[in-house]
Amino acid sequence: MTPDDITGFFAKRDELDGDQYLELDFTFECAGDPRLAAAHLASEQSTAQWKRPGVNEDLRPRFAARVIALDATPLPDGFSVPLGVTPPGAVHRCRATLAHPHGNFGARLPNLLSAVLGEGVFFAPGIPLVKLEDIRFPASYLALFEGPQFGVGGVRAQLGVFDRPIFFGVIKPNVGLPPDASAELGYEAWCGGLDVAKDDELLADAPYSPLAARAALLGVVRRRAEMETGSSKGYLANITDEVSELARLHDVAVEAGATMVMVNALPVGLSGVRQLRRHARVPIVTHFPMIAALSRIPAHGVHSRVITRLQRLAGADVIIMPGFGTRMMTPEHEVMDNVRACLEPMAAIKPSLPVPGGSDGAETLAGVHRRLGTVEFGFVAGRGVFAHPGGPAEGAASLRREWERIAGSGA
Amino acid sequence: MTPDDITGFFAKRDELDGDQYLELDFTFECAGDPRLAAAHLASEQSTAQWKRPGVNEDLRPRFAARVIALDATPLPDGFSVPLGVTPPGAVHRCRATLAHPHGNFGARLPNLLSAVLGEGVFFAPGIPLVKLEDIRFPASYLALFEGPQFGVGGVRAQLGVFDRPIFFGVIKPNVGLPPDASAELGYEAWCGGLDVAKDDELLADAPYSPLAARAALLGVVRRRAEMETGSSKGYLANITDEVSELARLHDVAVEAGATMVMVNALPVGLSGVRQLRRHARVPIVTHFPMIAALSRIPAHGVHSRVITRLQRLAGADVIIMPGFGTRMMTPEHEVMDNVRACLEPMAAIKPSLPVPGGSDGAETLAGVHRRLGTVEFGFVAGRGVFAHPGGPAEGAASLRREWERIAGSGA
Repeated sequence: MTPDDITGFFAKRDELDGDQYLELDFTFECAGDPRLAAAHLASEQSTAQWKRPGVNEDLRPRFAARVIALDATPLPDGFSVPLGVTPPGAVHRCRATLAHPHGNFGARLPNLLSAVLGEGVFFAPGIPLVKLEDIRFPASYLALFEGPQFGVGGVRAQLGVFDRPIFFGVIKPNVGLPPDASAELGYEAWCGGLDVAKDDELLADAPYSPLAARAALLGVVRRRAEMETGSSKGYLANITDEVSELARLHDVAVEAGATMVMVNALPVGLSGVRQLRRHARVPIVTHFPMIAALSRIPAHGVHSRVITRLQRLAGADVIIMPGFGTRMMTPEHEVMDNVRACLEPMAAIKPSLPVPGGSDGAETLAGVHRRLGTVEFGFVAGRGVFAHPGGPAEGAASLRREWERIAGSGA
Repeated sequence: MTPDDITGFFAKRDELDGDQYLELDFTFECAGDPRLAAAHLASEQSTAQWKRPGVNEDLRPRFAARVIALDATPLPDGFSVPLGVTPPGAVHRCRATLAHPHGNFGARLPNLLSAVLGEGVFFAPGIPLVKLEDIRFPASYLALFEGPQFGVGGVRAQLGVFDRPIFFGVIKPNVGLPPDASAELGYEAWCGGLDVAKDDELLADAPYSPLAARAALLGVVRRRAEMETGSSKGYLANITDEVSELARLHDVAVEAGATMVMVNALPVGLSGVRQLRRHARVPIVTHFPMIAALSRIPAHGVHSRVITRLQRLAGADVIIMPGFGTRMMTPEHEVMDNVRACLEPMAAIKPSLPVPGGSDGAETLAGVHRRLGTVEFGFVAGRGVFAHPGGPAEGAASLRREWERIAGSGA
């Protein structure tokens, strides 16, 4: 690229029509001139060759991504992560904001992902380490997505729970139980005070526990628990499967008595979630396999809040995410970023209920509530309910008692 | 976990029925006892709680993943990558092979991904850095997948090219051209000797270049180029879109004159690729957006050959992957691993044609051929054909001439 070429990939934000652009925050480590690297990052993710040889044209004004902010700090010790192949030159750590014209692809999640997390981003010359830190959408683009059908308000109305966290429990043992055993455990936990009994993310339509049989048995005891407790109860069936099966399994689960359905978002694909959203008659819950492979390294990949925003855009009413527990190895500010990504305003897109979890139980509830500073969350326990020495009913009751204590103390 | 608990997650390979297990090679960096960490890795990805309190049962013999090989090396300087949160304790780098019972989930790609790249793998206590390096499937499991419909042989038969690499060209400018301009460029390149003209991975059914219009124009000139050259020519249409649209766009493209269809594998989801496989009447080509976010860091994520194997399993006839060029920042051994993953025997699953690419042209062809040591590959040029100073026909001809030189010299 010549200096003139580079200039064509920079712009001032107020020179651009904001309605036509996504804003992408990147951090990256580059070898060589940071301004050249940033221009390559913009070029490669949009119109890498912006004219035909011999034709007097310039496709950049309409189709190019533009760098609208850039700062760079020298890294005298070189790249922060050992890599197999690195480009030569002095190394800088950079922050850049790019404006990317969404008219290049439209309101299609796979094409959005291909643009903002594609070859152009991860193979820009001079940039071996790059992380998409955040993404912002203009309202005109958001208006092309359905978003959650029920959202936080719809999930609360379904359960009749308005002024406290919603208590989920993952039926455990998570893998290997026959349907009747799962149903017995769910029933006990509901009677003890659980709001929603859920399948583990590893238990779907399994040979040893077919979804239809499990959902039928859980549906029966869910209604029995509702009669006995006088409270609404939810059964969250994991329907994760090939995308061609999601609508059918949704119907199987809901007809048998599931009140919500879960899919593992990246394994089925965000587009599979969106397809399910258009079919679903109950809230959709998404779970987080694969995301940490993309998000854990500070210098490379994708910040988890980007994937959270995209799950919300795809229509997840409830988003299960790594929480504060030490096993989850997630910085507190990252958990908070993800919770905010669920709840903050997003034009007409409804909020998703955040469920930060992992190795939680009654003993961690006060800490989670204090950090979040709101009751607008789901709290999920697995072994905290189903390995409780007093049994699942006592495990669930321990959550509710702890909540009463917290609410009573005004903590 | 007690020492007894740990033992329950270890096994000798020959004690297990190999037909019932996938083998997973992991590398990881852990804090604390490597044997305990490996047991957690096995436990969390399968039956984390293997009995109900008060019930005399053990779900591990049938449902647990088992560690069948483990070695550990101290890392006196601690974790190799700066991380936000790390567990306390002495750090080791480990290699482990796990046997994972596929009966836990069956022949479903999203459930396979949830097990081998899920919460259990990335949130095992003590293991903040972990990479799935490889995966092996027993023939009984492979028999449950369709794999490529055409494979290398079918793609070669379609084009009538048997004894040399297949030459692909990405029509450039990649984004922003109207359909008639794309068709004109494709026509010139075919006449110059290109086998397959393809859409860029960023150009799908775009507002400024609707797939139906583009495929129709390219279909007409493709047939004209076939008549004029006497050779079969291919047009590869990028149909990447929401999964609910893939079958429809396949039909639109093929009816208009496309001879192959492309999808960006991870953006549409591997399950979306498999769904398309069941519908497609032409070869499916997959492209690599997002994969480097998972694979570039040596210490964390997923080795790209795992994703290559899964694309083949999902039914990709042709797999485009990062090649040897310096821009691609991919170690040579990793490119070779991916090429082998396409071509090596995989029970009855047909081979996929590997297309290692990125910034290639006539000047890089000999080097690519020499490294691969075979003609069983596709060679893809973008700017090497479409930014050639002599125009696309001359750019394509330069590839064919260079191949004649290589073949003639016996190099």
